[in-house]
Amino acid sequence: MSSSPQLLIFDVNETLLDTKAVTAAINKELGNSEAAGKWFQSLLHYSLVETVTGDFADFSQIADACLEMTAKNYGKDLSAEKREIILSEFKKLSPHSEVFEGLQRLKNAGFIIVALSNGTLETINDQLKYAGINQLFDRIFSIQSIGKFKPHPSTYAYVLDKMEISSDKVLMIAAHPWDLVGASRAGLQTAFIKREGKSNYPLSPKNDFEAENLIQLSNLLIH
Amino acid sequence: MSSSPQLLIFDVNETLLDTKAVTAAINKELGNSEAAGKWFQSLLHYSLVETVTGDFADFSQIADACLEMTAKNYGKDLSAEKREIILSEFKKLSPHSEVFEGLQRLKNAGFIIVALSNGTLETINDQLKYAGINQLFDRIFSIQSIGKFKPHPSTYAYVLDKMEISSDKVLMIAAHPWDLVGASRAGLQTAFIKREGKSNYPLSPKNDFEAENLIQLSNLLIH
Repeated sequence: MSSSPQLLIFDVNETLLDTKAVTAAINKELGNSEAAGKWFQSLLHYSLVETVTGDFADFSQIADACLEMTAKNYGKDLSAEKREIILSEFKKLSPHSEVFEGLQRLKNAGFIIVALSNGTLETINDQLKYAGINQLFDRIFSIQSIGKFKPHPSTYAYVLDKMEISSDKVLMIAAHPWDLVGASRAGLQTAFIKREGKSNYPLSPKNDFEAENLIQLSNLLIH
Repeated sequence: MSSSPQLLIFDVNETLLDTKAVTAAINKELGNSEAAGKWFQSLLHYSLVETVTGDFADFSQIADACLEMTAKNYGKDLSAEKREIILSEFKKLSPHSEVFEGLQRLKNAGFIIVALSNGTLETINDQLKYAGINQLFDRIFSIQSIGKFKPHPSTYAYVLDKMEISSDKVLMIAAHPWDLVGASRAGLQTAFIKREGKSNYPLSPKNDFEAENLIQLSNLLIH
């Protein structure tokens, strides 16, 4: 049995923040209710294309490039200006309704709380501040410091190194199975938050915790 | 200016073979005309999740796992049997209409022609045989031999090693920008086949050749 975690690493987009404002803007612009889903999948794919080919570009640059490409694949031409307006929605996302209370309960219970996102450090800082939850984090990390995207093992190892803690005392919390696959293979414990439309990747190692939201998770973690 | 290529490496799915039978089967089963597109994107993403986390599963296993997950994300439960029936369509794809003639013209002009796919060797062999184009290939490669998925540089390097040829004499041909990004960064020349609904990834290095289909490509390559 794993030891009780001391450090909680939170993924940001979808896990803490509700991305429906971005989704709605893209679906409206491309005239298809599934367009944003395809765009986000291609963004995740191309971030790893950069990583496996030994290259790097900011997540926001890749997001923009994928939006341009996805639009063309739907037969639309989105100007750089229009793409910028759409993607600026990323910095104005609301937290899921239970996130503030959930984080506060975990903080009050003595857990160390950090964020780790594929976004740029500037974006993550802006996002958490806009969402009104930045003060609940002990530290905020971007994969920019490593030059590889999650779920590359270096991204988790970097946080452990900076926080001076061993992997068995760390819990990665995400609404994305691929993030948890990487964390688990890097030796961390994992918690899957089953946000709407998310389900486990069948080839994943078993998660240590599964919950509908952060309140449920806090009930599982606080004894 | 690059030297004239001697070895042509062809990607298989979408580039040579028309995947609409698989697409139609998935979209029908999940009741959404974009479901197959999202499934294929997640398959590409999870193949690289395996590669960056240092693990490996057959492409067909990942395809099945992603189909199960994608179905759940649409609120549907697909049985293993049903998934197997759907994915068996992969082995019965027709080539795009101009592929046989295009490959034959390139072969007659003296190019060495090989295939390199993320699929298992068994699947690729079955696919090219069913499509009636297997005899046009000098050799057929699967990334299974390397244990990493395209566009990891090792996959292209493996083919070059086996064919005993230097990268500057090799042209990678694909309908997928991510495949060409990898090939280009591994030092190969690239040709983008602009199949329906495909467009360049804006952060790609410039392709050496771009064509609507293999006949157009053969016109660019044969002098």
